[in-house]
Amino acid sequence: MAESNVTICSTLEALLDGKKYSTIRDVLVTMNPADIAAVFDEVKQERLPVLFRILPKEIAAETFVEMEPDDQELLIHGFSDSELREVLNELYVDDAVDIVEEMPANVVRRILAQATQEMRKDINDILRYPENSAGAMMTTEYVSLRSGMTVGDAITSIRRTGVDKETIYSCYVTEARKLIGMVTVKDLLLAESDDTPIDEIMETNVISVSTLADEEEVALTLSKYNFIALPVVDGDNRMVGIVTFDDAMDVMEEAATEDMEIMSGMTPSDKAYLHSSAFDLFKNRIPWLLLLMISSTFTSMIITGFETALAVHVVLTAFIPMIMGTGGNTGSQSSVTIIRALSLGEVEFRDLPRVVWKEIRTALMCGVVLGVVCFGKLLLFDGLILKNPDVTVMVSLAVSATLAVTVLVAKIIGCMLPMIAKKLNLDPAVMASPFIATIVDAVSLFVYFGISSALLF
Amino acid sequence: MAESNVTICSTLEALLDGKKYSTIRDVLVTMNPADIAAVFDEVKQERLPVLFRILPKEIAAETFVEMEPDDQELLIHGFSDSELREVLNELYVDDAVDIVEEMPANVVRRILAQATQEMRKDINDILRYPENSAGAMMTTEYVSLRSGMTVGDAITSIRRTGVDKETIYSCYVTEARKLIGMVTVKDLLLAESDDTPIDEIMETNVISVSTLADEEEVALTLSKYNFIALPVVDGDNRMVGIVTFDDAMDVMEEAATEDMEIMSGMTPSDKAYLHSSAFDLFKNRIPWLLLLMISSTFTSMIITGFETALAVHVVLTAFIPMIMGTGGNTGSQSSVTIIRALSLGEVEFRDLPRVVWKEIRTALMCGVVLGVVCFGKLLLFDGLILKNPDVTVMVSLAVSATLAVTVLVAKIIGCMLPMIAKKLNLDPAVMASPFIATIVDAVSLFVYFGISSALLF
Repeated sequence: MAESNVTICSTLEALLDGKKYSTIRDVLVTMNPADIAAVFDEVKQERLPVLFRILPKEIAAETFVEMEPDDQELLIHGFSDSELREVLNELYVDDAVDIVEEMPANVVRRILAQATQEMRKDINDILRYPENSAGAMMTTEYVSLRSGMTVGDAITSIRRTGVDKETIYSCYVTEARKLIGMVTVKDLLLAESDDTPIDEIMETNVISVSTLADEEEVALTLSKYNFIALPVVDGDNRMVGIVTFDDAMDVMEEAATEDMEIMSGMTPSDKAYLHSSAFDLFKNRIPWLLLLMISSTFTSMIITGFETALAVHVVLTAFIPMIMGTGGNTGSQSSVTIIRALSLGEVEFRDLPRVVWKEIRTALMCGVVLGVVCFGKLLLFDGLILKNPDVTVMVSLAVSATLAVTVLVAKIIGCMLPMIAKKLNLDPAVMASPFIATIVDAVSLFVYFGISSALLF
Repeated sequence: MAESNVTICSTLEALLDGKKYSTIRDVLVTMNPADIAAVFDEVKQERLPVLFRILPKEIAAETFVEMEPDDQELLIHGFSDSELREVLNELYVDDAVDIVEEMPANVVRRILAQATQEMRKDINDILRYPENSAGAMMTTEYVSLRSGMTVGDAITSIRRTGVDKETIYSCYVTEARKLIGMVTVKDLLLAESDDTPIDEIMETNVISVSTLADEEEVALTLSKYNFIALPVVDGDNRMVGIVTFDDAMDVMEEAATEDMEIMSGMTPSDKAYLHSSAFDLFKNRIPWLLLLMISSTFTSMIITGFETALAVHVVLTAFIPMIMGTGGNTGSQSSVTIIRALSLGEVEFRDLPRVVWKEIRTALMCGVVLGVVCFGKLLLFDGLILKNPDVTVMVSLAVSATLAVTVLVAKIIGCMLPMIAKKLNLDPAVMASPFIATIVDAVSLFVYFGISSALLF
């Protein structure tokens, strides 16, 4: 949390103790709703309802949207029915849906009971779409224009209906509910004359997404074309809503966070860190730790299998962590690069041969350099400086050769697994460091003991 | 690359062979510039200049902006001076700067020579700001209104000057170049009357960033407030430019990619994967692999130091990878969570005690569960099923206790290091898995041999 929020927060609490409600109101209205929400997040929960009621109506709703779900729930419990109705009336449908999705069933029932009939229908329609789909993230409040309107008609229509629209800047032209064109407010304002028909200036190759498109695809599309909003259409190209850039930004942020969490062996969570309890963190982390611990049984078994050989050349043990570590690191470099390229749509499954070939060449360069440096380091540092008599030329050779081979194998596995996962409709991010490392650990041990046996026994 | 691009690409090449230039033009004008650029990226380089010249002027410039730097350079080399001037005239200043930043010096000189005097000055001004600052990412083409204008005046002014502005939707009111207010086109269109003074409807608490603000901070601010554009001001609150949401989205994407690359031990690169050569990848990866390999010398030395003990209980060797692996995994869970929370501004250095306390409680839960499961697994699976006589109760106890202690240490190190790095103005992402794993490896070995010595000798 930011230092400034803590300061404002204690100021507010002092003003509240002094019952200086109008001063509090004067302070809060100068602030942006996102900042008010951040401050409210720091306030003691029992004071929240009083503070919230001091806010003017429009600011109250905007602030409510920006608050954490637990604070929202607390406020709703304290609201009278008419207060709840007031807040709901000011919300955009997509924001109302976001709130409904986070609330327990009894709160949802109260929200739906107090919403207007139109909003209740819109909320229910959106809730029917699969989670993380374009349909579930869209809003139904967009500017719709009819073919045949002039620029002047369009501007009049926007002026009449615009106040309830999430954005007025992208306007969609429909005919029998089908999306046939798109025109921006910039086009309208800069048109030669108010009498120009919008059909003449509208873009007819409108880029849209289906209601079932994945939210990450929606965000990427919006970002690729630099759109303020993207129309969402059903299977018959009938326009049903829009997704705006601000929601796309949130999806991009969440998707990147989720990928990072999965890549480091955690169940993703959309709770902010300081809002997650230690038990939440434990629940997200322990399954993966257990899985990875159990799967390392294989490495233990391999080592046990070579115990007799290791007893003769105990020095070989000293280099196991280095070989496994390098294998894990080099494999995760490749897997993370490919996972990210897949997320951004830069690489697809059909690029597999190109990717593998690129990684093989990279691996050969890395393998040779690492192998040579390792060989030199073992002979000079361990052999000459530390005077370890067990680090012979043959031992150094076995370790270095293993390193080079491990790098090659790790990079090939690292780049292939995420692509195969994607093809199988699994999340490629699962195939990152911890998973790759476990496989590479086992492979590198076999290589190590294989090469060592050949060279030393 | 997308399958559809390959299809369009071969169609275009066939049309080009048949010299069907007007058909090509008809096909291309239906497409969005971002899609044209993606298709051009797949076309054989020698055909690019011909195809590019077929595009109408406005689309040509927009497509140019979306292309990869190597294709842009190739095209510029083929342009006549007047062609280059034509493309430059259509560019927004921030896009021109992005291109200039990627080009070699001789190309930059040609671009600056052909730009208008005004654009050359703007480009040079922006280039003077530090890389990755708000000043370097902004554009100077925004709608500026004067205090005292009416809504009608403002709309007239936008209609006159809007065509050259990157966005017209956020308009900034200045007085003696100082930023005193902001008004949106929505506010203007929905105002009660054209005679309303803009000073009455404008937002006077304008959120802005300084020219020196970091680009990630700019993107976060824009995303937090859901703004289409964010004004950039100098040290004296004089307005110098705006950053638009589309550039903020690009920064967010790049910042997440960069964090992932650094977190998995790579030098970040802004080249797309398929545009990076194997040698590029090698250069970004090998320094970290070498560093991590060399630093694992410590683990080798620790193991060598305990060689005599290991020779007595060779079975202890078999569990080194499992202990190190679990330590690395659990540490990286904490470090990645904190690195991301720091990136998103959810956590700051002053939260350190709260974070450490949360991680300690999480670690205790994880440590106990992992320790108990590990103890059970060793006794039942390794002891009873595999009938390994070396896995005694005491050995199992040593391994499990080490595991639990390692988890605690790893989580504390994992959460603290990124926060300390941030405080020291280093990139917290450096403190992720590979780095944490190297430290945790060494620590866990000391713990292992310490506990084992106490229990077994």
